[in-house]
Amino acid sequence: MLELLDPDQQIPKETYEQVYPDLEIRLGACQRAARAAGVPVVVVFEGWDAAGKGKVINRLVQALDPRGFKVYTIGAPTETEEFYPWMWRFWNLLPAAGDIVILDHSWYRRLLLERVENDQADSWPAAFDDIRDFEHQLTDSGVVLVKFWLHISKREQKRRFQTLESNPAMSWRVGPQERKQNKKYPRWLAAAEEMLARTDTANAPWTLVEATHERHLRVKVLDTVAAAMQRELDRRAAAAPPERKPMAVPADWPPPHKTILDRVDLSLSLTREQYDEELGKLQERLLNLEYRLYDARLPAVVVYEGCDAAGKGGNIRRLTRGLDPRGYEVHPVAAPTPQELAHHFLWRFWRNVPKAGHIAIFDRSWYGRVLVEPIEGFCTEAEWKRAYQEINEFERQLAGHGTVIVKFWLQIDRDEQIRRFQDRQNTAAKQWKITQEDWRNREKWKQYEQCLVEMLERTSTTYAPWTILEANCKLYARIKALRTVADAVESALGGKRGRDSFPLATRGRRG
Amino acid sequence: MLELLDPDQQIPKETYEQVYPDLEIRLGACQRAARAAGVPVVVVFEGWDAAGKGKVINRLVQALDPRGFKVYTIGAPTETEEFYPWMWRFWNLLPAAGDIVILDHSWYRRLLLERVENDQADSWPAAFDDIRDFEHQLTDSGVVLVKFWLHISKREQKRRFQTLESNPAMSWRVGPQERKQNKKYPRWLAAAEEMLARTDTANAPWTLVEATHERHLRVKVLDTVAAAMQRELDRRAAAAPPERKPMAVPADWPPPHKTILDRVDLSLSLTREQYDEELGKLQERLLNLEYRLYDARLPAVVVYEGCDAAGKGGNIRRLTRGLDPRGYEVHPVAAPTPQELAHHFLWRFWRNVPKAGHIAIFDRSWYGRVLVEPIEGFCTEAEWKRAYQEINEFERQLAGHGTVIVKFWLQIDRDEQIRRFQDRQNTAAKQWKITQEDWRNREKWKQYEQCLVEMLERTSTTYAPWTILEANCKLYARIKALRTVADAVESALGGKRGRDSFPLATRGRRG
Repeated sequence: MLELLDPDQQIPKETYEQVYPDLEIRLGACQRAARAAGVPVVVVFEGWDAAGKGKVINRLVQALDPRGFKVYTIGAPTETEEFYPWMWRFWNLLPAAGDIVILDHSWYRRLLLERVENDQADSWPAAFDDIRDFEHQLTDSGVVLVKFWLHISKREQKRRFQTLESNPAMSWRVGPQERKQNKKYPRWLAAAEEMLARTDTANAPWTLVEATHERHLRVKVLDTVAAAMQRELDRRAAAAPPERKPMAVPADWPPPHKTILDRVDLSLSLTREQYDEELGKLQERLLNLEYRLYDARLPAVVVYEGCDAAGKGGNIRRLTRGLDPRGYEVHPVAAPTPQELAHHFLWRFWRNVPKAGHIAIFDRSWYGRVLVEPIEGFCTEAEWKRAYQEINEFERQLAGHGTVIVKFWLQIDRDEQIRRFQDRQNTAAKQWKITQEDWRNREKWKQYEQCLVEMLERTSTTYAPWTILEANCKLYARIKALRTVADAVESALGGKRGRDSFPLATRGRRG
Repeated sequence: MLELLDPDQQIPKETYEQVYPDLEIRLGACQRAARAAGVPVVVVFEGWDAAGKGKVINRLVQALDPRGFKVYTIGAPTETEEFYPWMWRFWNLLPAAGDIVILDHSWYRRLLLERVENDQADSWPAAFDDIRDFEHQLTDSGVVLVKFWLHISKREQKRRFQTLESNPAMSWRVGPQERKQNKKYPRWLAAAEEMLARTDTANAPWTLVEATHERHLRVKVLDTVAAAMQRELDRRAAAAPPERKPMAVPADWPPPHKTILDRVDLSLSLTREQYDEELGKLQERLLNLEYRLYDARLPAVVVYEGCDAAGKGGNIRRLTRGLDPRGYEVHPVAAPTPQELAHHFLWRFWRNVPKAGHIAIFDRSWYGRVLVEPIEGFCTEAEWKRAYQEINEFERQLAGHGTVIVKFWLQIDRDEQIRRFQDRQNTAAKQWKITQEDWRNREKWKQYEQCLVEMLERTSTTYAPWTILEANCKLYARIKALRTVADAVESALGGKRGRDSFPLATRGRRG
């Protein structure tokens, strides 16, 4: 791709002076329109060192209202960032609806600097998949993604380094790393070529920019950004307004064939004596495993899903009672805040993924997207239909980082639920736990069952399998949950119980 | 203090079994009431290694609804955290109104571990002031702050280390650092004694807890937290509701004596030619200084305040046009979000203080607290009256970290303002910049002037002086602003222009 580019493209000064001021006004207007329409924008700058990323970014932001953009420079991951899946830090800086984020270097760092300079031959090929998943998740959700490659020749780069070196205030900008890039220009070029070719997708295409001459560079960058924003604004204006309506009651439910729910044996139970005996032993085992997990820097995720009064809270309390609180965190998932709603639905969960050595327990989770939101009509059909894939991709990235993933569905039958509702209503200390909404949800049993079966089937993967807890007997469900977590962690630590082993997180250090 | 404590306090099992379940229920009820009343709670755990902080924190959180608390373990500051004033990371994790934050170690780490183990003799004495300022800011704003010191004897600590070492899953918890603490117990004890004595304030007292026996420890911790929450709940219930009313029009304004505003010469101006000549030179000088600042890891803060249409935006654009965007950030300050309103008013500004080597430019700032909020009635009189001190303390902490602080007040007269309003209204491309609110604000000129004079007098300090920009002529104000910033940065870098030198940030590294 790059060999066909003429890096010396230029625009005459007179043309520039005619065109540029209007371009700035157009971009400012686009920003205000995008803000009003809630369009988030991500602009990525990659390219050769000294190609002029900093200068052109500054020109770009001069045309923007500061109430609405952020510039981030992406350097090597910090110690803290290395404790997380590598995409974590990029999720953290995504713009809310209506905002603009400008990146000086980006996730492509991994395919360039980390590939060429570091010896990470084992990790970078997987990054292609991670990046493609990430970018389609962004653009599917309506993010405008503009990616620039700023191109200069080897000779031009050398000339610029010499100019920088001759200025005492700037000479530190040319270090051994920069010099090396110029010396190994062909090797970098090959890596860049492969990167550009493999990530030049229809939804997130690259814009190659000839960067030798500033006027051409500025005009092309501002024009490309404004055009991309305008395209999305036009698309939204032309599209039918998104339809969010509650799912209809399925006429053909339950289906004629048996579902996975029919195979759940809700008569399974434990006596109080069996329970007490097991519980103490399991809690002690879990505390030991928690310390070993910490020492091995393995993260773990435990997801609890289940209908109202299925016993999630009590189950989580038994799981955590014996643990060291410095090693785990419980994340109760309620309705999203306005800030969370202004992002991709996975954004708030990415912010809470556990760091290496820690356990994150989710009381409800990202599965709300395919379980509650379709039923309540909180998202469009297209949104929840693509969420299965998005969730599998999300969990694959966690697993790729070495995360142990355990997902529980707590299953109870309708009679048991009504018994528990009545008990809550009749016990003074429990009354705050039952609301009108619980009764309302109960009427949507058929829709829940249908969504549930689809969820279990489509998101149970080798790296993140579902475990159904037979929860009519709370004691049984608790013991099974604790044992499942303990077995999964032990297996990941290299124990002997039949679970597939996970790759160890090799980069994080103890925190 | 500690020598009078009997660490072996114990509670009989029968008493415990009677008392403890009720205590848990009481604490849960306190949490729900505090949530409803919007009371934030911070619980700090300090004490000897192996005193049982982890275990008792786990017991404490078992009694709480997970939808409302967070546990943080405070280790050594990360690389990123070292780029900021040391209190920055604690501000970042403060609870919103109604939430609880539990800290396993805290800001006191600096007075213990960093004092005893590290060679930081120069930095820790100042930490006493920083901590007292921080804690009174919290408690003044209605945060419940509970601080525990968990006490065990040297012999008990040694015994516990031996137990941990004999368990293969836990032995890593006893490292050289822990062994050293036991060996140097008297030296630690002396540091702890001084720390406890000097920070045992009326608003944030220490609770010393005898920690040898778990039952006593648990009961004392839960009881102390519940009682502190209850006290604040009772106080709020008994107090008159906070009165937030717009400031009255001052009858005696302008005052008979001259104010600082009378000494401002608004006739100062520049011709376009003078301006063009100066601007180019200053922008080049500023770019060089930006790189030197980055290289020296000095942070800088530039504050812009001024009435509507005073020319803040245009001034900031001239300041930043020549800079490298990777080294500065503009923070436009709008009305606080609900999340920001649920915190101390300085919280959102602490989150945006610049890291070492970077420049943060604020388009409006924390001075809204003493300028806009009293006039609009957005806060109580007590709140804005204590804000002068809070702001001076805040800026002192920034300066203590080596931050260059420049604060601009853009002054125009009433005639000039009306001219600019009319110009905006009559120019198509500028109409979005003028709103009804601007006209409304204009009517409160007297109140603004009164607040302004008080603000300038009370918050102009040696480390963070105000500079008044005579802004009837925009060109003059821009050149003066750019030159003031350049001079201040140059002086901090060790230049020769008469500004006091700032201590260099010694800890942060390049980022």
